[in-house]
Amino acid sequence: MFMNYNAGQGELKNWIVEETAFDSAFQGKCEVVMSQGNGYMGARSATEEKYVGQVRNLFVAGTYNKFDADEVTELPNSADMSAIEIFIDGRRFHLETGEVSNYSRRLNVKNGELIREFTWTNNEGKSFEMRFRRFFSQANLHLMAFDVQVKALNSDAKIEIRSGVDAQLSNSGAQHFHEGEKRIYDKRFIELLQHTTESKVDFVFLTSHRYLVDGQETEIDPGLQMDRRKVWLNINYDLKAGETFGTEKVGVVHTSRDKQFDVEGYELQALRDHALTNLKTNADRSFDELLEESAAEWDKRWAGMNITIGGSDFDQLAIRFAQYQLNIFTPMHDSRFGIGAKGLSGEGYKGHSFWDTEVFMLPFFIYTMPEVARSLLEYRFKTLDGARKKAKDNGYIGAQFPWESALTGEEVTPVWGAVDIITGKSTKIWSGFIEQHITCDITYALWQYYQITGDQKFMDDMGYEIMFDTATFWTSRLEWLEDRNMWGICNVIGPDEYKEHIDNNAFTNYMAVENIKLAIRYFEDLETSNPELLAKLSDKLNLVEAREMWLERVDNIYLPQPRAEDKVIPQDDTYLQKEIIDLTKYKEQPFVGGLFQDYNLEQVNDMQVSKQADIMVLFLQQEDKFDLETKLANWNYYEPKTLHDSSLSLSTHSVLASDVGNPELSYDLFQQAASIDIGQNMKSSDHGIHAASIGGMWQCVVYGFGGVRMLGGNLRINPNLPKEWDSLNFPIYWKGERLEVTVDQEQVRIERPEFSGQALNIEVAGEPRVIDSTEVTFNV
Amino acid sequence: MFMNYNAGQGELKNWIVEETAFDSAFQGKCEVVMSQGNGYMGARSATEEKYVGQVRNLFVAGTYNKFDADEVTELPNSADMSAIEIFIDGRRFHLETGEVSNYSRRLNVKNGELIREFTWTNNEGKSFEMRFRRFFSQANLHLMAFDVQVKALNSDAKIEIRSGVDAQLSNSGAQHFHEGEKRIYDKRFIELLQHTTESKVDFVFLTSHRYLVDGQETEIDPGLQMDRRKVWLNINYDLKAGETFGTEKVGVVHTSRDKQFDVEGYELQALRDHALTNLKTNADRSFDELLEESAAEWDKRWAGMNITIGGSDFDQLAIRFAQYQLNIFTPMHDSRFGIGAKGLSGEGYKGHSFWDTEVFMLPFFIYTMPEVARSLLEYRFKTLDGARKKAKDNGYIGAQFPWESALTGEEVTPVWGAVDIITGKSTKIWSGFIEQHITCDITYALWQYYQITGDQKFMDDMGYEIMFDTATFWTSRLEWLEDRNMWGICNVIGPDEYKEHIDNNAFTNYMAVENIKLAIRYFEDLETSNPELLAKLSDKLNLVEAREMWLERVDNIYLPQPRAEDKVIPQDDTYLQKEIIDLTKYKEQPFVGGLFQDYNLEQVNDMQVSKQADIMVLFLQQEDKFDLETKLANWNYYEPKTLHDSSLSLSTHSVLASDVGNPELSYDLFQQAASIDIGQNMKSSDHGIHAASIGGMWQCVVYGFGGVRMLGGNLRINPNLPKEWDSLNFPIYWKGERLEVTVDQEQVRIERPEFSGQALNIEVAGEPRVIDSTEVTFNV
Repeated sequence: MFMNYNAGQGELKNWIVEETAFDSAFQGKCEVVMSQGNGYMGARSATEEKYVGQVRNLFVAGTYNKFDADEVTELPNSADMSAIEIFIDGRRFHLETGEVSNYSRRLNVKNGELIREFTWTNNEGKSFEMRFRRFFSQANLHLMAFDVQVKALNSDAKIEIRSGVDAQLSNSGAQHFHEGEKRIYDKRFIELLQHTTESKVDFVFLTSHRYLVDGQETEIDPGLQMDRRKVWLNINYDLKAGETFGTEKVGVVHTSRDKQFDVEGYELQALRDHALTNLKTNADRSFDELLEESAAEWDKRWAGMNITIGGSDFDQLAIRFAQYQLNIFTPMHDSRFGIGAKGLSGEGYKGHSFWDTEVFMLPFFIYTMPEVARSLLEYRFKTLDGARKKAKDNGYIGAQFPWESALTGEEVTPVWGAVDIITGKSTKIWSGFIEQHITCDITYALWQYYQITGDQKFMDDMGYEIMFDTATFWTSRLEWLEDRNMWGICNVIGPDEYKEHIDNNAFTNYMAVENIKLAIRYFEDLETSNPELLAKLSDKLNLVEAREMWLERVDNIYLPQPRAEDKVIPQDDTYLQKEIIDLTKYKEQPFVGGLFQDYNLEQVNDMQVSKQADIMVLFLQQEDKFDLETKLANWNYYEPKTLHDSSLSLSTHSVLASDVGNPELSYDLFQQAASIDIGQNMKSSDHGIHAASIGGMWQCVVYGFGGVRMLGGNLRINPNLPKEWDSLNFPIYWKGERLEVTVDQEQVRIERPEFSGQALNIEVAGEPRVIDSTEVTFNV
Repeated sequence: MFMNYNAGQGELKNWIVEETAFDSAFQGKCEVVMSQGNGYMGARSATEEKYVGQVRNLFVAGTYNKFDADEVTELPNSADMSAIEIFIDGRRFHLETGEVSNYSRRLNVKNGELIREFTWTNNEGKSFEMRFRRFFSQANLHLMAFDVQVKALNSDAKIEIRSGVDAQLSNSGAQHFHEGEKRIYDKRFIELLQHTTESKVDFVFLTSHRYLVDGQETEIDPGLQMDRRKVWLNINYDLKAGETFGTEKVGVVHTSRDKQFDVEGYELQALRDHALTNLKTNADRSFDELLEESAAEWDKRWAGMNITIGGSDFDQLAIRFAQYQLNIFTPMHDSRFGIGAKGLSGEGYKGHSFWDTEVFMLPFFIYTMPEVARSLLEYRFKTLDGARKKAKDNGYIGAQFPWESALTGEEVTPVWGAVDIITGKSTKIWSGFIEQHITCDITYALWQYYQITGDQKFMDDMGYEIMFDTATFWTSRLEWLEDRNMWGICNVIGPDEYKEHIDNNAFTNYMAVENIKLAIRYFEDLETSNPELLAKLSDKLNLVEAREMWLERVDNIYLPQPRAEDKVIPQDDTYLQKEIIDLTKYKEQPFVGGLFQDYNLEQVNDMQVSKQADIMVLFLQQEDKFDLETKLANWNYYEPKTLHDSSLSLSTHSVLASDVGNPELSYDLFQQAASIDIGQNMKSSDHGIHAASIGGMWQCVVYGFGGVRMLGGNLRINPNLPKEWDSLNFPIYWKGERLEVTVDQEQVRIERPEFSGQALNIEVAGEPRVIDSTEVTFNV
């Protein structure tokens, strides 16, 4: 048990994720769960000193680059300022030599600070108290700061600290950067430039140090060093027994992708000057002062989103951890960028945005930070041209969003994946070609956003355009099913990615129909509410013709129905006819993907085995379209065949379990979902945070246990509190107004702190209610 | 003391370089001094398991690639097959955990085998005897082999070995390769392709494994794994106490730079087929069988070059070590390639050829492996077009060889170097622009080759052309010195690279004059001996005009003369007027370049401080042009001002010390030169082997102590045996005939094992002698 989720005391109770021992075999865990960032940039929290197996990453949102013509664009792993190597009496300090005691590494999710401290005794018997701190500023998105303190406990020692900027890193060997200029100004301000090879983004890294002896600032004349793609200082100090030597390091990162520089007439020198000014402004400020400034921003965030869970410390920490992560990896500052499937905490999925954003993460933002939700949807709007190109390239019309999206909305899913154990070749990844449901997922999500926020301006400026053009895509995408005498959607991958080249995936078909229906409905709406806008959009999107096609086809699209005998909805045309195999072995494995040690994807395609929720996600999205009996029947059929090999699966099943009235199962699945990243499994997070699962955790709490849902434009709050919890309190924003919902085993309390006198009609605990005061309480 | 040079016993006495303890802080030492190769390829001997600070390198001669337009071409660090990770009961094995005993790593320079063995006890108390062996084949230049054995001493253990091909490596961050296809054939033959980005060289890596339990081959069904730029097997075995599990790995590397594939109509598939055939032919052969085949080739090499030193075991090992290195890093198989300044053992100097080849390494080959010397000179001939382009680009005529040379002979010296501590910027490297003496060094070396081997065909085909066109370059390079009313050579860097932009560097001027004189002399020779060839060359090189210029200028070129008062020859026009500073501090430092922690190059340029031998190299090259008194006077003046910050300096001074009759000083300097790589300094070899110093070691022995020199076309053998040695025996080839020279404190014996009846007139021990039998002995 390396992880302790119970370390926070007093004010910090349930705010601290702690590692209680260091083992280089398990570095990935804390690199990821303790990752830091501010949406502008994010980094794995690799230790200052180096170990084999460590993955050092710093990603700046939106700075995609393509290494090679036949590769896809990805977030490049840029230069590292967090490596701070300590040499004691000439020997490199690391924890795999000597003796370590009182070890603790703690991430404070309240203020974003990471602290690592321990006592270390080297092989010569010299003992040192060491403390490492760092944070990424929420107040100055370009800034990170580090503090390293070494106290000599029992003897004098020569300390050397090597610290600077290292740009020798790559994305698993793919080097995205030209080597840029290196410079040390005034023996203090270290500058290193990087330039991406294809997208031509300039990066400026700058760092400076302050030195302290027993807390008093002191002067050091460091040795200056440069190597290929690397510039650093050798900081030497003769430490006396009892003395503490501290090095505080401030680093700033600015790029030409930054909004103010991503303009006509941009000049690198202006970016450099701007960055140097930012560094110089902060270089003489203490770590604590800078941290305080950032923590104040965090306090504002928490005031807006704080969830209180009574009765379970771990669950309280888990939901805070999830919200911490959602805050650090989401590029809230810039609507040109989406959220990466691994946030900013790993190379996995290349920093690309998937349906993970709209289906798993967006609900948190819609209900809690609607302006961020809008920014994320605006990102999709800004990539419409890419989506149109994709549709056109595939012979369709309208807008077809890419399965994986980067800066432009063009398809960036890689084509080759893991080994096929039968052929010995790389497996072809088909998602970029035929996993198409993302297009309706986005429209469905923006409609949710619209309904929940009432943001008409967004719809006028962007929402309708996405909705109409995706509907057009879907109608053009339909194929005539001769046997059924209906329209269908053939040759797709649904949410369950173990089934490729299937016809009429239930999820895809239902969601596509919904997409078209929404377009039809809002076209009609606009005819009366805003004919001018409609005329403009009609011109641009050729809506007269498009609408004819929507209307002509929408009611004759095949939607797989529950089988008469058992209410099971066929996931696709062939799933239910495939071989059923014993999955016990794979269900019991503590790791995912074990199936592919025995079968290749072609073989798996022919079995009734699912990677993840598929029909279940449909139930979650369109909760009111299916009755309880159907939901249960399908749960009982599909769940045993589901390996949950995707981290998106557990939270979906948890919410569904709440929906079907099984809060205990729901709670168990919630805890499993939470444990993907903050459990005791030290290997599960290696490749990066499970961003969708993190978003799913919020859904488990607010959608599942809180029972919140927007259905048909109306708010519903039907709580299903698990017995382990005494109470649950969470804020949601409904039509721009903050509501505080407090649930316990008996009651639901709705507070309207901003109550203006207007009554609110919502469903609470199964009944329509009128909330017409600052606080109303109902029995559950 | 980690290094033991006394480990060889019996037949292996003085053939073994041993490391007696492992410390990850000192990995560079054995990676380099125990590096392996066969001239086709070479690798640092990084351990199979990984440690921080390790540098894994595999270079294939001649496969240069340019990462970026504004960088220079370099040998790319290609894929690694030597990483073989062992997991015991799920934990990664490495020596920084648990207890190690009986550790020994030994390079056998006789057969090229590297063995590492030890007993390791993990933290659970399980003990294992481990042995790792590897070699690069001299019999099959594309092949390397590994053998890993793990014996469980006191308990059962689950063993997992991860082994395959890893192409995530780069040159300190510069990635020279596109990601290529990965493939596992028949669950056994692992293939990985790489393609250089600019030079378009295809690499094919293939590897296969054999598994043995207690020496008996066994079958294993490995897990197949692929990641980005990486493909490997997970090999699992449940080891019983007392049992030994062995994995033998054979790897082959083929590239489209290989002579047979570097042709019109080349197809990658043919290369892949050829490589796979090579692997399959050897995949079922045992490590021992493959090693034996390679060792047999080594035996032939040693028979041709063996030097025997009586009286000092270390010196005996040292010279063998030097010869081992000269054999593994020289691309003897292909005259399109030169020798890198770090051989094939590091990224340092980018695999480029410098004057190091001709002035420091070529003598060994001329006297011992004349066919290899010819190949190396042919390399220069093949780069003449690049040299002509360089001359032309600089406004000269003829051929100006580049300071750093890769495949084409165009200048490839990088332009930016280490930090300038005053400006904080990278220091500009001027060598590629103005360090020009390499052009006369090459001509002087080929003349030596011609005189010593009598290889007239080489001269006809290549030698004269180089000689004439370089002479033409020099005459066009001359500048008129108004003050002296003579020609001079201004704005150069001489061998002493701490002096930039100097005029009339003595070494450069003397050698350039010699170059022109040789051209004049051999032009005259050809007029009578081969007028046809001369006519052909005249046409091609415009020799009529050129010769007029040679003749007109050669006798009026300024050659710095010994000062009347003290016989000191000015190294250049201004050196002797510069400030003299106290160098004690820097002379005492155990590392090079310390001066630049206090001064920048501009400041150093204004002091009488030298990096390395300058006038001394002139004395070594043109020994007969200067009298003893002059040599001594200059030694006494310059040596105290020389920091020997280049590894080329010590061996030069050692030979010079012999030449001026100070064998004790010479011996001391020889040992210092040897210690650069095989001393006890564990950091000095980190960046790669000191190839020139290695060549210089042979010169210390044969030129210095053996007293061998070709002077004016005649052989001279004036031994100066140090008192520490009882005897010295070495072979040299003179005009194609092998001579065996044996020296002791009293006598010199010359053997002519191939004596054909023709008398040989040479100077031995200060007198002209006639060798007219198979063996003649003279008193020293």
